[in-house]
Amino acid sequence: MRLRKKPGAEEMLRENEAFVVSEPTEWRGRWNERFGNDHPIHVEIGTGKGQFILEMAKRHPEINFVGVELQTSVLFVVLEKQLVEKLRNLQLVQFDALEISDVFENGEVAEVYLNFSDPWPKNRHEKRRLTHPQFLKNYERILAPTGDLRMKTDNRSLFEYSLVSFSQTNWTLQEVSLDLHADEDDENIRTEYEEKFSKRGHLIRLGVFAPPSRS
Amino acid sequence: MRLRKKPGAEEMLRENEAFVVSEPTEWRGRWNERFGNDHPIHVEIGTGKGQFILEMAKRHPEINFVGVELQTSVLFVVLEKQLVEKLRNLQLVQFDALEISDVFENGEVAEVYLNFSDPWPKNRHEKRRLTHPQFLKNYERILAPTGDLRMKTDNRSLFEYSLVSFSQTNWTLQEVSLDLHADEDDENIRTEYEEKFSKRGHLIRLGVFAPPSRS
Repeated sequence: MRLRKKPGAEEMLRENEAFVVSEPTEWRGRWNERFGNDHPIHVEIGTGKGQFILEMAKRHPEINFVGVELQTSVLFVVLEKQLVEKLRNLQLVQFDALEISDVFENGEVAEVYLNFSDPWPKNRHEKRRLTHPQFLKNYERILAPTGDLRMKTDNRSLFEYSLVSFSQTNWTLQEVSLDLHADEDDENIRTEYEEKFSKRGHLIRLGVFAPPSRS
Repeated sequence: MRLRKKPGAEEMLRENEAFVVSEPTEWRGRWNERFGNDHPIHVEIGTGKGQFILEMAKRHPEINFVGVELQTSVLFVVLEKQLVEKLRNLQLVQFDALEISDVFENGEVAEVYLNFSDPWPKNRHEKRRLTHPQFLKNYERILAPTGDLRMKTDNRSLFEYSLVSFSQTNWTLQEVSLDLHADEDDENIRTEYEEKFSKRGHLIRLGVFAPPSRS
């Protein structure tokens, strides 16, 4: 997701250290100290405007959430909401998903969420897809052996690509829906994007994958 | 697929031994003798009315095809067409897919096709689904290490179930389409059922799976 550059966004992110982690690599292996408890850590990679992770954090005070977003102007939108909510179990960080294993220790994360990631439809951009085997290696590292990765998308090609990518790197499919909103229960929290594109008739797909270490 | 019982069907099947194998277990491990050549063997489990396997056999004289169907009256329809075509690379057999490893030797089959199998939607009938792990064990046995299983269906629940079932028994997804007719090329041969339900707007799904022995 890209938004117009917001003047002052960077400054705002810097000024709110209680919610925005400026040096995430320094917390590697001790995120629980940062949260001040031993609750499991769930990470969303690519928060977009944050509706999903804020609602998750509100509903699940027993879980610590880390929202990762590369774009300053996008993370700023999430911060604005967090400044109203002041959720103690939600931290925001700005960095590239490629470096995620610099930010979390092996096995430190209980759950990873990929919601409506950029499909990068062109073949030459395959490596940028967040379900490219290179990224999966990193998720495998940071996930606890009992952890899962939950992926939602409306993009058919990205979902097909991802099913093959996970399978070929020995992840195990735990659960799948090819039309999530037909089966939807109260547990599903819609992202902004999900609401918009579901209304336009796009099918929403969900895949839940267990890392290779599990099997 | 079920059809009204056809009087004389059983007799017809018995009378056409050149095309219908009455004692398939006797050919276990020597199907190539039956075909009189060393071509690879492809097996469709559940032929329906046979449009798929007849067209495949016509297009691919370099491959031997075995069409498996449990229902006498359904196999009879395939036989009627084969009596016109007289394809030397197509044999029909009537038996239960549960017993498939009594009919083919380990590794004897190069490709298995499951086209629009009965979805058996009720949980208590799960074991009858042709992608239940019990069946997958048998396909794994009869498939050559380089072989694949190709599955098509319009049934979302069956496809979701199957993706999980294959994954959890360590098959590898080689290729997938969640809307085959959007991507369709000349290679795809439609079954009767596929044509009918595609016209009604059902999405047709394809999955190509490699057996665990491959990885």
